[in-house]
Amino acid sequence: MIGVDWGTTSFRAFRLDKSGVIGRIERDGGIMQVQDGDFAAALRGAIGPWLAEGESRVLMSGMVGSRQGWVEAPYCPCPAGAGEIAGRLMPVAFEGAQVFVVPGLSAQDMGGVPEVMRGEETQIIGAGAEGLVCLPGSHAKWAVVSGGRIEGFETYLSGEMFAAVRSATILGRMMDEGPHDAQGFARGVSRSGDAGHLLHHLFGVRALGLFGGLSGAASASYLSGLLIGTEIRAAMPRPAAVTLLGAPALCGLYAQAIAALGGFPTIGPSDCAASGLAFIGSLTPWN
Amino acid sequence: MIGVDWGTTSFRAFRLDKSGVIGRIERDGGIMQVQDGDFAAALRGAIGPWLAEGESRVLMSGMVGSRQGWVEAPYCPCPAGAGEIAGRLMPVAFEGAQVFVVPGLSAQDMGGVPEVMRGEETQIIGAGAEGLVCLPGSHAKWAVVSGGRIEGFETYLSGEMFAAVRSATILGRMMDEGPHDAQGFARGVSRSGDAGHLLHHLFGVRALGLFGGLSGAASASYLSGLLIGTEIRAAMPRPAAVTLLGAPALCGLYAQAIAALGGFPTIGPSDCAASGLAFIGSLTPWN
Repeated sequence: MIGVDWGTTSFRAFRLDKSGVIGRIERDGGIMQVQDGDFAAALRGAIGPWLAEGESRVLMSGMVGSRQGWVEAPYCPCPAGAGEIAGRLMPVAFEGAQVFVVPGLSAQDMGGVPEVMRGEETQIIGAGAEGLVCLPGSHAKWAVVSGGRIEGFETYLSGEMFAAVRSATILGRMMDEGPHDAQGFARGVSRSGDAGHLLHHLFGVRALGLFGGLSGAASASYLSGLLIGTEIRAAMPRPAAVTLLGAPALCGLYAQAIAALGGFPTIGPSDCAASGLAFIGSLTPWN
Repeated sequence: MIGVDWGTTSFRAFRLDKSGVIGRIERDGGIMQVQDGDFAAALRGAIGPWLAEGESRVLMSGMVGSRQGWVEAPYCPCPAGAGEIAGRLMPVAFEGAQVFVVPGLSAQDMGGVPEVMRGEETQIIGAGAEGLVCLPGSHAKWAVVSGGRIEGFETYLSGEMFAAVRSATILGRMMDEGPHDAQGFARGVSRSGDAGHLLHHLFGVRALGLFGGLSGAASASYLSGLLIGTEIRAAMPRPAAVTLLGAPALCGLYAQAIAALGGFPTIGPSDCAASGLAFIGSLTPWN
């Protein structure tokens, strides 16, 4: 079968057999870049050669199943594992292959506010992790997994706030471009201590800079530590084991911060999306 | 004498005698708009007529005393009242009048991170308030005043973050322009409860919108309530009396949120800057 992880800005396809991934395609063509909304043409353009070689089963996950995607696949409510997800796959009309879309998951946080994910559920299932699982990113997800089922999850806007603070506030104007500054990052994580004071700590980035306590080169890393530290303290109120899934560099930063805050980070397997698609694919009602 | 409150984006001058304010000038010409950095010409252009009528004493406060201003007036460390401030006025050469600049204040927060204000100290002194004093704004200040002296203070970036979230994140794209929505604001204040989760609550603005739980018209007010509520919970950890100084509409929102969180808000006198300049002026070593 073919597994596709189709997000807002990226497209990844995996050719899968029982031994695992036997071919892969990666390109920029996220759902926002699909010409004239012709998803079928975009998919055929990418995986046409595999179809020509006889593949006829395609399972897709990610924002391709959102309102802005190919079809809207209604969210599957938590708790949900591969079984519940496979029971709610959304078929898509496509000539020459059976195509299904994995639904995203929905949940409610303790305050009754809705939560949503699309694509991360497939990675979590693919990782086979239990307990607290974190997927860093512009909208970081923290999920609790038990017996292979995602019990619930929370989203943190840390990555997007980092970009917004840099691009649209006075703090950004004092930040120099440059390599990651490990000491600045660690200081930011440590400073995040009193989580309720994030709005105050943000001003501190500027005040430290003004008084020579933080260089322009270190301040972006300090801000990153402040935001990631605040997120972790909220998402991991007590020291816990955390499995990290995602881009290695960002997972590395989170691992550092989790360890500094008393937790026990593990960086999970790469290619979780492929394994998750393969596993859900094994439960899919193909013709 | 003449009192001048000269900030980054605004210029206000007051003609003062023993009875109070007997004349006022307000214009857009903040320190960033001074042509060729010629502050003397800008000042003369604004208050020339009063000088011609015999005024010869000018006291200025605000960002005019910053590195980007006319002269840099070194910060006066807290605790500081009118006496300490008057002892550190910075003279400025100006033909035809004696001109002094009020220094800003510096402090350290409990984590040893520096804090600064310029202009707000004059308003606080002018208000004659005691206890907890809040000056809402893009960089909101919370000061503790005791016996007329500012013991210390903290800055919160809430106002600037509100603008950054609106202009530079996905949340801004779902917000419609429109009048203030009192119910949305109150919901945001109430939701801010778990202050450590601000980064999570920000995603909630989007998730609520996605599920029809928050209209585009109400979401900006909800975001405002979320940020102001988070700020107040951090700055007022226990219910307390709070004096609010500043723009009436924004003070009104803060008063609502403070009351909702168990505190006791009072909106302070207007024209605090003028009274503060008059009071410090009475202690100024004029020739």
